Amino acid sequence: MSYKPSFGDIAHLGHVEIFTPRLQESVAFFKDVLGLHESGRTENSVYMRAWADYALHTLQLTGSATSGVGHVAFRVKSAERLADMVGYLNENGIEGHWREAEFGHGPAFRFRSPDGHALELYYETDRFAPKGHQVPGFRNLPQRYSPHGIAPKRLDHVNLLANDVKACRLFFRDLLGMRVTEQIVFDEGEEMGAWLAATMKSYDIAFTRDHGKARGRFHHLTYAMDSREDVLRAADILTENGTFIETGPHKHTIGQTFFLYFYEPGGNRFEVGAGGYLIFDPDWQPVVWSKEERSKGQAWGLQTVSTFHTYGTPPIEDPGKKEG
Amino acid sequence: MSYKPSFGDIAHLGHVEIFTPRLQESVAFFKDVLGLHESGRTENSVYMRAWADYALHTLQLTGSATSGVGHVAFRVKSAERLADMVGYLNENGIEGHWREAEFGHGPAFRFRSPDGHALELYYETDRFAPKGHQVPGFRNLPQRYSPHGIAPKRLDHVNLLANDVKACRLFFRDLLGMRVTEQIVFDEGEEMGAWLAATMKSYDIAFTRDHGKARGRFHHLTYAMDSREDVLRAADILTENGTFIETGPHKHTIGQTFFLYFYEPGGNRFEVGAGGYLIFDPDWQPVVWSKEERSKGQAWGLQTVSTFHTYGTPPIEDPGKKEG
Amino acid sequence: MSYKPSFGDIAHLGHVEIFTPRLQESVAFFKDVLGLHESGRTENSVYMRAWADYALHTLQLTGSATSGVGHVAFRVKSAERLADMVGYLNENGIEGHWREAEFGHGPAFRFRSPDGHALELYYETDRFAPKGHQVPGFRNLPQRYSPHGIAPKRLDHVNLLANDVKACRLFFRDLLGMRVTEQIVFDEGEEMGAWLAATMKSYDIAFTRDHGKARGRFHHLTYAMDSREDVLRAADILTENGTFIETGPHKHTIGQTFFLYFYEPGGNRFEVGAGGYLIFDPDWQPVVWSKEERSKGQAWGLQTVSTFHTYGTPPIEDPGKKEG
Amino acid sequence: MSYKPSFGDIAHLGHVEIFTPRLQESVAFFKDVLGLHESGRTENSVYMRAWADYALHTLQLTGSATSGVGHVAFRVKSAERLADMVGYLNENGIEGHWREAEFGHGPAFRFRSPDGHALELYYETDRFAPKGHQVPGFRNLPQRYSPHGIAPKRLDHVNLLANDVKACRLFFRDLLGMRVTEQIVFDEGEEMGAWLAATMKSYDIAFTRDHGKARGRFHHLTYAMDSREDVLRAADILTENGTFIETGPHKHTIGQTFFLYFYEPGGNRFEVGAGGYLIFDPDWQPVVWSKEERSKGQAWGLQTVSTFHTYGTPPIEDPGKKEG
Repeated sequence: MSYKPSFGDIAHLGHVEIFTPRLQESVAFFKDVLGLHESGRTENSVYMRAWADYALHTLQLTGSATSGVGHVAFRVKSAERLADMVGYLNENGIEGHWREAEFGHGPAFRFRSPDGHALELYYETDRFAPKGHQVPGFRNLPQRYSPHGIAPKRLDHVNLLANDVKACRLFFRDLLGMRVTEQIVFDEGEEMGAWLAATMKSYDIAFTRDHGKARGRFHHLTYAMDSREDVLRAADILTENGTFIETGPHKHTIGQTFFLYFYEPGGNRFEVGAGGYLIFDPDWQPVVWSKEERSKGQAWGLQTVSTFHTYGTPPIEDPGKKEG
Repeated sequence: MSYKPSFGDIAHLGHVEIFTPRLQESVAFFKDVLGLHESGRTENSVYMRAWADYALHTLQLTGSATSGVGHVAFRVKSAERLADMVGYLNENGIEGHWREAEFGHGPAFRFRSPDGHALELYYETDRFAPKGHQVPGFRNLPQRYSPHGIAPKRLDHVNLLANDVKACRLFFRDLLGMRVTEQIVFDEGEEMGAWLAATMKSYDIAFTRDHGKARGRFHHLTYAMDSREDVLRAADILTENGTFIETGPHKHTIGQTFFLYFYEPGGNRFEVGAGGYLIFDPDWQPVVWSKEERSKGQAWGLQTVSTFHTYGTPPIEDPGKKEG
Repeated sequence: MSYKPSFGDIAHLGHVEIFTPRLQESVAFFKDVLGLHESGRTENSVYMRAWADYALHTLQLTGSATSGVGHVAFRVKSAERLADMVGYLNENGIEGHWREAEFGHGPAFRFRSPDGHALELYYETDRFAPKGHQVPGFRNLPQRYSPHGIAPKRLDHVNLLANDVKACRLFFRDLLGMRVTEQIVFDEGEEMGAWLAATMKSYDIAFTRDHGKARGRFHHLTYAMDSREDVLRAADILTENGTFIETGPHKHTIGQTFFLYFYEPGGNRFEVGAGGYLIFDPDWQPVVWSKEERSKGQAWGLQTVSTFHTYGTPPIEDPGKKEG
Repeated sequence: MSYKPSFGDIAHLGHVEIFTPRLQESVAFFKDVLGLHESGRTENSVYMRAWADYALHTLQLTGSATSGVGHVAFRVKSAERLADMVGYLNENGIEGHWREAEFGHGPAFRFRSPDGHALELYYETDRFAPKGHQVPGFRNLPQRYSPHGIAPKRLDHVNLLANDVKACRLFFRDLLGMRVTEQIVFDEGEEMGAWLAATMKSYDIAFTRDHGKARGRFHHLTYAMDSREDVLRAADILTENGTFIETGPHKHTIGQTFFLYFYEPGGNRFEVGAGGYLIFDPDWQPVVWSKEERSKGQAWGLQTVSTFHTYGTPPIEDPGKKEG
């Protein structure tokens, strides 16, 4: 009897590795300005998490010659299902290899998206164990809330640039069981963006058309705040810190999330966001937006800044060195 | 090969039928003060929904000799799974019967909780189809947001009183596949409360120990707001309307949700809430609170008002007439 | 002994008359979308107020061949001081005339700003007297809060276009006793904007350089919300209503207020805003911004949309008909 | 020609000296948990301010054998007016003495309220001069916003216990020119509370009836937040820090402010608050609340906790040592 991936087999986005040519400055920014917490270090990486992330880390910062994404890892809902999913990928001709347990999680199967992004599936995970002043007053939270910096609550989603959005969308839908929630499809049928979810959130990963010629590039990584007021407060903190705010705060039409985009010292775009809708309907049909609709700008009319369409990491002039 | 219910088989809480001895006043309250939208009427019931509920209705108000809950209905994720679940209930000796399609949904299997609450499982559902001024500017939302009354976003959860919380908890966990997220267990092992989820929310249904002798009573039904500011605004609206606010706004320790409780004209307790946490970890273990911990009051120290423990509907003196 | 106007002699901005070529549509918009309350009507005007305005009206909508501002009226703190102020204006060669008591207030002295805007000073005022369902639960508020439309709290400030910002600034400072709080002065000494306050708010009136050749034009009128969340909610309401949002929500550098600009059906620009700072220091010195500083955009980097500098009412092509 | 104090002669509440038997712990609390900034130290005092306070300090913490208030200081709007006001106090038989310039301000006239609280009037003030990382990006703010601890925006008001509320009310109204905004007067004419303002805020100082027999005691000192969301966030921070929250967050009927009360390590009650109304009407009449009205609890029905009526500093059993 054959297994086929279905919605819910991937439990959630686990962690994302980000390359930075300025590791020390990036780490300082994520700790002091964004307010993440350091979980540990290996030779060339620093591992971090938001205060309400249950896992030992959700962000891996790795020193590199350039900026960009190292790999994107998803936690599968059980060990059995992990074996099933890897088997299914193999059956479908997807090459990959198992990596031994490393910082924060057990064995992971690494493979590539149609666009070349490194992806991982894993099940075994290390959990954050609070000590001393980190022990929360509320045992249903992983850590005491610390009002330091922006202090986002948890990892939310990753957005990857892709030359072939459609191929990525079908890959994540058909081989990984994720739900397509929203799409941008231009009149000629050209897919410009796809939003997919492993959970009831409106998206956990998104693919946006890369206007350059490079492959496997990174658009942004997002941490979630509890409220829009928290996002407005984040804008004040970034401004006072001299961090470049690319656009926002404003509301996305897609996902209805409240957004704020900025560049960390290594050059990668990050977002803090809040709100949006949850999907309860098991029969949700993708909402498809046309070119004309997208020309209206964001939810309240803000025109999307041009860099949002053109800037990705690594910069195209600098193809960078990707991990093997 | 035998089916066993697992987490996710129930898609979500679908709708709740509430009895009211003052149907007309209750309907007026839910439309004008709470800001729900009427979807239709049958002989003795009025059907309503919040603006972002995708289903045709999430609340059924039924004229009755007394207050209380009529039935609680859950939507199952597919027709196949509905058949599986009903089969499993039958195998386990749970009596029930199929009801024909009625307002808002297709055939439903009706049975009773260990405490006697009427429950339903169904799959086929009618969706809200916006017309005229209800058509939203955003096609990823079911209806245009209308700033009328409190205007909650969607149905959130139901809380039922039970003489035997443990029996209800095990019933929903083992026969319906729901996740136990939090519990109150007193030192002698007595279960005082149980919170369960069909989704990644911290709860979709809760059982609270009934201090009276009646069975199958109702504690409250909750609609979700987008923000805590919206809950504060709701408090102003209720106050200016002369509606009795029982307690709040304040933050629950359990679920970390921001709450506000009030009584509708028929005497039933309702809540509007916001916030709380989402559960990403597929291996979530129930958080169990002791009597000592609960004695500390709510999250910021507010002592729970005594009526919260004693008031349910129908009033105990008035055992009411339950639907057959 | 000679009187000289000092800070506090003008109590506050009282009301503003706005011309509209579409009186009926404008009235419908202000009632149903903005959520103002109608106080009464005269032959060609409709009078309105926000729910927490103590005066009988703060907005007078007058049918006219074109859009623009009719007059701007300030309440003086006492009858004696009104006489003093008018005497001082006369001594300084300012021409004007007394108008008899009319809807909402007693005798008013009408004169013109250096740019030709009609201005009024008055003391005697009619107060809003709530009746029936308008009677508030809290006697320290003038009216029950009604969650209808955007529902701003009170009138906040008016912004007028001027060919000679400096002349207007000095007129309001030296002849009317207002405090200059902030200014935009370009490198060549050219004054591009001036913000002045009669109260401890960061501004009650502002003058912005008119890039056209017309005189006495109107930039915008602002109503205040209680919170930034209320402004975000207003953006949703305007969007769903199809109202053109010109810019925002975002934070002003000047005044640090959170803003949202839109056009009412008559073509006039209105704003809802929140926040900002109060001035406690009696020796406050104007904060002067340079061209270079203003080129950085608004507080979080949003570039000011070009229409904000060019669009005023009445449109320049249509010089309109001003009241005599 | 005789001077009589009028509204506006006192510019604002300047600073308050608080006694603490645990100076070191109190200082640590105000810096790390409340998020105030230290401005300097003298032998037995530490001076602090909120990030948007323009003055060099608004709080003076003084080591003492007990808790309570040292003195309450108001800034007068000009040097001339200060002389006028002191002359008027002298004419009216109020004894006091001039103190030389000290930390943060110039010469001050010290005298006592009818209940014995030490009061000061001064005009010359030191302003906070930001250095290095404190320099704000916005020159209309005194300091860069630092997201450390609760981080209130500015000093708001002080509440003093009094045996004779009426005497204090008349003293501040008639001898200091302050506006009576709200009152609690019981049926027998007994004054239980009085709220007065030097500014357009709904109050800058309040007097509450002391149920004990001591005189000159302290009820609480309040710092203002920008939003109610900030107050909710403060509740999280206090809770996670283990600070005792006495009551709130909730909305006051009086002043319509959103409140949160807690005890600092020295035993004094402090508040962080937000919102409320501004008074624009120069003819504002005091709003007088009856015993029956006050029995309804706070704005949304929360019953005032009993300690709020009985707890003041210093504790009555410990009359403390007041500065001479």
